[in-house]
Amino acid sequence: MTDTPHLPDPIALTKTLLACESVTPARGAVFDVIEAALLPLGFTVARFIEGEAPDGPVENLLATRAGTGTHFAFAGHLDVVPPGAGWTGDAFVPEERDGLVYGRGAVDMKGAIAAFVAAIPQTPGIPLTLILTGDEEGPATYGTQALMARMAERGVTPDLCLVGEPTSAVRLGDMVKIGRRGSVNLWIDVPGKQGHVAYPHLADNPIPKLVAILAEIDRIVLDTGNAWFQPSNIEPTDITVGNPATNIIPGHASARLSIRFNDGHRGADLIERMRAIIAAHAPEATLTARISGEAFLTQPGAFSTLIGDAIEARLGLRPDLSTTGGTSDARFLSALCPVVEFGLCNATMHKLDEAVAVDDLVALTGVYADIIARVGAL
Amino acid sequence: MTDTPHLPDPIALTKTLLACESVTPARGAVFDVIEAALLPLGFTVARFIEGEAPDGPVENLLATRAGTGTHFAFAGHLDVVPPGAGWTGDAFVPEERDGLVYGRGAVDMKGAIAAFVAAIPQTPGIPLTLILTGDEEGPATYGTQALMARMAERGVTPDLCLVGEPTSAVRLGDMVKIGRRGSVNLWIDVPGKQGHVAYPHLADNPIPKLVAILAEIDRIVLDTGNAWFQPSNIEPTDITVGNPATNIIPGHASARLSIRFNDGHRGADLIERMRAIIAAHAPEATLTARISGEAFLTQPGAFSTLIGDAIEARLGLRPDLSTTGGTSDARFLSALCPVVEFGLCNATMHKLDEAVAVDDLVALTGVYADIIARVGAL
Ligand SMILES: [Zn+2]
Ligand SMILES: [Zn+2]
Repeated sequence: MTDTPHLPDPIALTKTLLACESVTPARGAVFDVIEAALLPLGFTVARFIEGEAPDGPVENLLATRAGTGTHFAFAGHLDVVPPGAGWTGDAFVPEERDGLVYGRGAVDMKGAIAAFVAAIPQTPGIPLTLILTGDEEGPATYGTQALMARMAERGVTPDLCLVGEPTSAVRLGDMVKIGRRGSVNLWIDVPGKQGHVAYPHLADNPIPKLVAILAEIDRIVLDTGNAWFQPSNIEPTDITVGNPATNIIPGHASARLSIRFNDGHRGADLIERMRAIIAAHAPEATLTARISGEAFLTQPGAFSTLIGDAIEARLGLRPDLSTTGGTSDARFLSALCPVVEFGLCNATMHKLDEAVAVDDLVALTGVYADIIARVGAL
Repeated sequence: MTDTPHLPDPIALTKTLLACESVTPARGAVFDVIEAALLPLGFTVARFIEGEAPDGPVENLLATRAGTGTHFAFAGHLDVVPPGAGWTGDAFVPEERDGLVYGRGAVDMKGAIAAFVAAIPQTPGIPLTLILTGDEEGPATYGTQALMARMAERGVTPDLCLVGEPTSAVRLGDMVKIGRRGSVNLWIDVPGKQGHVAYPHLADNPIPKLVAILAEIDRIVLDTGNAWFQPSNIEPTDITVGNPATNIIPGHASARLSIRFNDGHRGADLIERMRAIIAAHAPEATLTARISGEAFLTQPGAFSTLIGDAIEARLGLRPDLSTTGGTSDARFLSALCPVVEFGLCNATMHKLDEAVAVDDLVALTGVYADIIARVGAL
């Protein structure tokens, strides 16, 4: 279908997007390309520059097309992670070789955005919103959350939302995400009193206290998982003392933890639980915590079944419904409406020589068109 | 007595020694000064350049004077720790101000060496050996141990040894050392497998293993001390992971321990005990250990009583017999004969504006002369 003359071509659009250097926080050219593609399709496009340094300014785009029936949204990000050194070619000069299109963002997620835009003309009349941010890979302070505030101002309230993150693993369509675990990072700092190892009674070594804290935390079993989530998990990711002298008791010891938790927990409760353990061993310790996102789950039901049906119809396989992996902006969007994530294969995301198969771009365009059509038929 | 014209003056000799820049490893001028002072006193002086980089070359000096009766040795070091920035004057330009002589090494321990040399003419006829190294403050690889090998070659076998380290605390003579704890440093390295915190089953976090090791070690009570030693003690002094990424499980975690132990333990046994604990929690971990010195004790008896008597006779106070503090070369010399350490006040040792009281230099010369005389009368 993609060779019909009046439709945007997902391969050409992907390449045009890949040619725009859009490392987080993204602005400008990459949004110009999308705006130019959406305007002929009947969308009203609003673009916003949000925030100040250091987390901004960021560009965001909200595109809406009126219609009747279920209001469907597609969310994604036009920013990419830095390419890193070692690419075969230029990360921002897209190159097609042996059926693959190379470029930073090919699967995460300019290719999926191009596929969705290319699918739109195939399914007219359905109310659609595109929620595209320039900061998903960074702090996301002024990204999707800022867009959601703009949507609220404008009364844009989708009924269902598809996020185009690269959820496929080995083969396009083998996995969709119906939820994500929450994530909290914690920094524990235990002060002590520096001194000479020969006179321990004159010093106060913070290391044994930190070790006791970490040993108690290590014994915690948060849960054993549930029907849709793997077990929640606490990982110590760093310890820092920084004492080069063999005969000195250090004056400071700190550690960092990462907790990935399922929908049986709330970030704030986990932080309080850690705080109590820390206080029991080292009342003088300080705890800094940052919730990157709460866990969310779109209960399997009509929406995930619809997406599974479209994938099965077009690709001949039934996707696993998964909640594994890191966080995504779906953690924010889940506050609006049921959210499911489905996109390209993630094998090369954030890696050198990121690439998308031309066949996958064509196939994904078809699946996205099928999903829009099925939403329109609800 | 120090103003008798034919005797070396301890203040003048201290200043001459302080003017020689002799940061570890020391060689040359500072030894020339001592040799020139000892030759007129009837000593045979042998000087040795020992070792190669990085721990050498080091200069050592062995001076012997024949005599009859108990063979008495005095041991010390002519090297000093680096002055560091922030001295009021020049650390190697000795300056006398308000009854104090300032300079790096004033109390640790050029002043004591000068006092001993100044005491020698007052007590003729007693067989004496001076054991002076240029590396006590450094790795000591080619220091006192090398000198002891030279002594063995020459059949120099003292019966008693006084080490001139600054053992006095608040007032000259308030403390002598009859032993020192042993010291072992241990480096524990736990390898793991780096990975993403979202996929802990694909990684192997070394931190919980290291924490378990350190928690078990922290529960150890080595002993509760004994008549002459404070309790042995294990201090963790550093932990290093060095992982800046909040979402990465690190591939490595390491820790360093310092054990200060009394004469109820041997370094090798402690290392094996640690090795067993480490292997139980992390068979793949590696342990590197270095014994800085074994514990030693010169049982209180005739020698320490003699020194206490001399101090009491000259200074009017009875010294505490102590085994506290760091290590010294007495740990090596204790293999030869009973060793006691007695010297100047240590308040400014290794610090900025290190200084010795002129009165203390004169008084210490008197006490050292008294000790030599009492040894001669044994
Ligand atoms: Zn992404
Ligand atoms: Zn010293």
